[in-house]
Order: sequence, then C-alpha cells, then structure tokens
Amino acid sequence: MLTEVYKEMLGAKSVIRDLAGRAAERGREIGYENVFDYSLGNPSVPVPDAINKSMIRMLTEMDSRSLHGYSPNPGIPEVRDAVASSLSKRFGIPYKREHIFMTSAAASALAHAFRIVTSPGDEIITFAPFFPEYRPYVNLSGAVLKCVSPDTESFQINFDEFESMINEKTMAVLINSPNNPSGVVYSEETVKKLSGMLSDAQKKYSHAIYIISDEPYREIVFDGKEAPCISKYYDNTIMCYSYSKSLSLPGERIGYMAVNPAAEGADILVDMAVQVSRGIGHNCPSSIMQRAIAENIDLTADLSVYEKNMNLIYDKLVSLGFTVVRPGGTFYIFPKALEEDSVAFCNKALKYDLVLVPGDSFMAPGYFRMAYCIDTEKVERSLPVIEKFVRSEY
Amino acid sequence: MLTEVYKEMLGAKSVIRDLAGRAAERGREIGYENVFDYSLGNPSVPVPDAINKSMIRMLTEMDSRSLHGYSPNPGIPEVRDAVASSLSKRFGIPYKREHIFMTSAAASALAHAFRIVTSPGDEIITFAPFFPEYRPYVNLSGAVLKCVSPDTESFQINFDEFESMINEKTMAVLINSPNNPSGVVYSEETVKKLSGMLSDAQKKYSHAIYIISDEPYREIVFDGKEAPCISKYYDNTIMCYSYSKSLSLPGERIGYMAVNPAAEGADILVDMAVQVSRGIGHNCPSSIMQRAIAENIDLTADLSVYEKNMNLIYDKLVSLGFTVVRPGGTFYIFPKALEEDSVAFCNKALKYDLVLVPGDSFMAPGYFRMAYCIDTEKVERSLPVIEKFVRSEY
Repeated sequence: MLTEVYKEMLGAKSVIRDLAGRAAERGREIGYENVFDYSLGNPSVPVPDAINKSMIRMLTEMDSRSLHGYSPNPGIPEVRDAVASSLSKRFGIPYKREHIFMTSAAASALAHAFRIVTSPGDEIITFAPFFPEYRPYVNLSGAVLKCVSPDTESFQINFDEFESMINEKTMAVLINSPNNPSGVVYSEETVKKLSGMLSDAQKKYSHAIYIISDEPYREIVFDGKEAPCISKYYDNTIMCYSYSKSLSLPGERIGYMAVNPAAEGADILVDMAVQVSRGIGHNCPSSIMQRAIAENIDLTADLSVYEKNMNLIYDKLVSLGFTVVRPGGTFYIFPKALEEDSVAFCNKALKYDLVLVPGDSFMAPGYFRMAYCIDTEKVERSLPVIEKFVRSEY
Repeated sequence: MLTEVYKEMLGAKSVIRDLAGRAAERGREIGYENVFDYSLGNPSVPVPDAINKSMIRMLTEMDSRSLHGYSPNPGIPEVRDAVASSLSKRFGIPYKREHIFMTSAAASALAHAFRIVTSPGDEIITFAPFFPEYRPYVNLSGAVLKCVSPDTESFQINFDEFESMINEKTMAVLINSPNNPSGVVYSEETVKKLSGMLSDAQKKYSHAIYIISDEPYREIVFDGKEAPCISKYYDNTIMCYSYSKSLSLPGERIGYMAVNPAAEGADILVDMAVQVSRGIGHNCPSSIMQRAIAENIDLTADLSVYEKNMNLIYDKLVSLGFTVVRPGGTFYIFPKALEEDSVAFCNKALKYDLVLVPGDSFMAPGYFRMAYCIDTEKVERSLPVIEKFVRSEY
C-alpha cells in the first residue's frame, strides 16, 4: 500500500521552485535576459578548469576499473586523508582520515548526521530564517525539528527563545553560517554564546548535544574575512560540507561530514554513518569526483562576483530606504519587505519581472530573499527596475 | 545521544568484507596473483571506451555550469527520456519519462522503492539465497524483511513456504534475478507462478502488492538468452537497476528506478520517490554520469568473460562431484559444500589460498559462493588448486 507520509507530501509545492518556474515561463515570453530572476541559489561562476583537467587526465590515463571502481563506503582513503589534512591545516584541528565521511553533498551529510545523533522523537533545534528543506530533512529522519524565531535585528541568534526551547530531548542544534537566506555570518560572539549555552545544557541533561553545522557557503565570505569555524569553539561539532557552491558543481553531489576529533564518540561516529548508509541507500559519492576533489583540495571557483553583486544590491536597497542586514557571505540577501505581507510584496515585484522569494518560506515572514548568483551585468540592469518598482508601488 | 540502532550494528562484521580483507593480507605475503580470491562481486572487465570518451568530450566542450549543474531531483529530463525509450524498445512496455527516477545505483533505487510502498511495520518478502545487505536495507526503512528459505533443488522459488508467509501486511516482494549469489535466472514458469500468486493475494487482501525487482545483473545472462522481464508478467512491478555491473562502474553510483506504467499509482510513484529523497539526502546521481549514460544508453562492457569463467568453473566442479546448479547469468556460482558446515569448508579452502564465501551469509548454509569476476587466466590457474583442495580434504 502506498505510504501516506510521502503521498501527503505530494500536495505541497515549493514556493521557490514555483517562482523559478514562473520566471522560466516569463523568460520564454520576453527573453530570459529580461527576467531578473533572483529566485534560485544556483552557482553562476564556472567550475575551475583544474577540476575538468584532472578529470580528463584520469579518464585518459587511469585504469578504468580503478577509476570507476567501488569506493569504500566512507570514501576513498586518500581522498579522506586529503580532506582531513586540508581541514587540519586551515583550522588547526587534528582531523584524521577516521573523522571524514565522504557524502553525496551536504544534504546527504545532514541525513547521516541526524540519524547518528538522534533516535526517533528526539529534538533538533534550528534558527529562523533557514533553508526550507531542513524541515523534511529532519522530520523524515524520525527526529523532530524545533524552530527558534528570527532575531530580525541582526539575523544572529534569538538566544532567549532558544534557551526556553532546550530540554532533555534536545540532541542537536542545526546551524547554517554563512546563512541561507540571510547571508549573515555568525559572529564570534554568537558562536561563543551558543557554545556556552550548549555546554551548560549538556551538563544539565547529562548527555551530549551536538552542533550539526551545515557549511556549504563557508568559502563565500566577504570583506576578506573568514567565518568563525564552529568546531574550534565547540567540541561536539559535526561539520557538513558540500563542494556545490565553492566549486560550482552542485550536480555532481559531493561533500563530506567531518567529525570534530574532540567530539564525544569521535571514534565511532563515522562508523555509525556507514551503518546509516546501509539503510538509506548511500554508498559513496562518485569515485571520479572524489579523486578530482582530492587533486584540487584547496581550490575554489572565482567567487568574487558574489561580493561584487552583493555590494551593488545592498547599496541600492539602502538608498531606496530598505531595512536590510548587510550580508557577510553567501550569495543571498534578506531585506525587509516594504509591506507586512511579503507574499503580496513579491507578487507586485513580479509585474516588473523581478523574481523575489517571500521570507515566509524561510520562517521569516515580512522579509524576502534575493539570490544574486547571476551575472553582474544583469544585476546592474536590474537596479533601475528595482527602483521603478519601489517608486511606483510604495 | 548516539542512537542505539546504529551503535549496535557496529559489532556485526561482514563475512564477505572480512574474507576479502584476509585475501588482501595473504596477497601481501605471497603476491595477490597467487591468491584465488573469489570473495568480492566487483566487475573485472574494463569500462567501455565510449563512456570515457563521452565524458572527455563533455568536459572539453560543454559549459561547465551546465555540465556540473543541478539535475532535477528525479534526473535530467533527457536522460530519463533516453532510459524510458530504451526500456520501451527492448521490453515492449510503454515507459515514459515520468516512470523513470534516476538514482545513485540500485541500493538507492531500492531505498526509495521500499519507502514508497510500505509504512513502518509492513512486510516485504524475499527469497533465500539473497544479497545480505537486503536485511539492513529493508529493516532500516521501517519495513520488516521476511525470508523464504531456499529451494535448493534449482534455486527458483520455494512456493509452498512463500504462500504461507503472505498475509495482510505483505506490501512487496523483493526479487533478484539473475540472482546473487546463486547465478540462477528465474524461469518464465517461476515468474508466471509468482505473478499469479501475487495477483490472488492482492484480491484477497484488497491492496496492491508490488514486486520490487532488483536487476543489476540483467545484462549478464548466458547461452545467448535474456532473463524474463518481470514487468511484462506483473503490472505492479518496480524495477531497480544499476549500471555498476553492466558498464563496470560501480564507484560512480548510477542506476534508476523504473515504475511499470501499468502499476497501481504509476502516475505518482516517481513523485513520491522525490519526496523520499528529501528525507534520505538523495538529490540525483552525478550529472556528468547521467549524461554519459544517456549518450551510450544501449551499451554494455564486454561481459563475455563472465560466461567463459563460469563454464570453466562449472565443468571443474561437476567433474569433482559437486552438487551445483548451473548459473544462467551474473558472475556468481553457488555450489553445495562438501560438508554440512560451509564455514568449516571455506576455512579449509583458505589453506589453499582459495577464498570462497560461506552460504550462511546468504541465508543458505551448506552452500558457498564463488564470485568469478576475475581474469580468466587466474580462473584457469585456480582449477588445479580447487582439485588439490578437494582431493586432500574430502
């Protein structure tokens, strides 16, 4: 009999996908270059040549049975070594092969992390605004997602509400900094306060509470800064990473889960992830992609365009009187809408061929998201359109 | 708190992996060419050049953002079209894009299929001997795996026991033909009888019972035959396929789930699979692998070596007096051991550097599996060693 859980989910439509679909449709009418589509968080910069060159070289030179052959479930040993050594050097944390579990990008890393540290009914707390998929990701793992409402002043953490939400069922906290959709990077102060509160809660409830740190935007940080590395501030941290954004290859599905060597259970968490894989049909990410990553371990695509776009948009929005927190990274910005109903606001924008996503999708109604991973030239052309929209409607 | 489910699984070791490890260790002592390692089902024939050439061409010519960009969750539309059209032509079943769901190989296809057609506590029946991973695959999905003991005469289906096991909780039957580990292909008679019994059971219990047909060895069939296509005999069939064996690229994790267009719910099963993906962290198989497959849709590696190896081994085993069913496909053979305790039998074989896997792992004690996906030259060298082992020990 078809399971009701998944059948019932069929009705719900993704607002973002729906908007992207409308943008594409409008594009067919007036030319996609005339639609200012800020809906989708899809990397717009090319994949570094070095990645493609590595792949071509391997396809040309390697024995095809080795190249395309089975990878052990937690990943090819040399690839895990390369990831561990790169993380160690960068963050000064002694990661070793046994702490690294290669995954089909961040979604898969999260799916494993949730299942390792929670039993059905346990709670995972996250902070609005957040990526809407967190809800099915967590709830379908058997755990329960609890959401702290946004600190709209700064999009850091609403600690008062967070504190009231922690209880004996809290097994993990899911964070995402640099953040989709706000673009905000958690400050050192935020990370320290979070870490302190969780340490206290661990003592109070006599069990580990893990931070599951979803970090696909780690490499996209502005003003020459680095995002505070959560694992440096809190031992029980499971880092979930994806190369989708930093290398512009979201379709290849490659990333990893990195367990802090100082975490409780650090010696068995990756082995447990291997067991999780058996249940969810994960075996390993593509072998050739694993090898291509390892050969180019510290490489990123040229991500500078995102900062350029952010500055153009931020300055324009400020000049038009928007209330907006300046993004510290990612390719998103999350301004306050000019009316309370952000769905209505975004619908009005559509008339100007401006595709914006209402904050309701991210548990922060009254705001809207712009994904500025588009060509700078298009961003520039969109600025007078944004101005026209605002002047005419508000 | 670390979940007990996965923690408890850590103790259990895979007998096959353990044996493969011992074979590798012995190989370091005496040279791997002197270890007759029949433990692992890892394809030994090269990947067709055309696959690598397609990949090199795409890496050279395509825009990297398109090539490595997000694939829609159920797969790239043109790739799904190519799979549907190839299956339609071959089996005369009108598959369309909407029936095809691209997956990270068969394990992932199965993980989706189980979750679509069962709710927690529902039962899935399978037939010994079977791939040992079926148990965690099914049980960790929330369903319960029930096992019919083997029909050791022919390794077809023990229908009497099967009939007694069907009840109102039976939602699916999981089959694998050509079969790992027996090498047997279900005959048309078997498939018709299975189909008839399930049709009756569907009426009796007033709900659909799906056949989940795991077909990674579909292309490896001997004597110029084809394995009966299950979907042709039973409407409610969900085919789970992998290119791991037919194209020798198990590390690239690519395959699909194909829903019979005549199945109950055929219009929503793939959409439901998309929802399942959200929970288990699956997004799509690698984009470049999807495209490489589509460009070479009807291609296989040169699989003839497996039949050659099978004949050599089968003839030798028969001449030595083994009771053995001649494989109709795959790269496995599953003879009866020369003593009741097949673990003891395989341990004795190890002294001759013959690595065989006890049937206990496949729920068929008293038998043993040989995976003859190794070079023919090595198979030939192993024959006198098998003879020596048998003559000396029995």
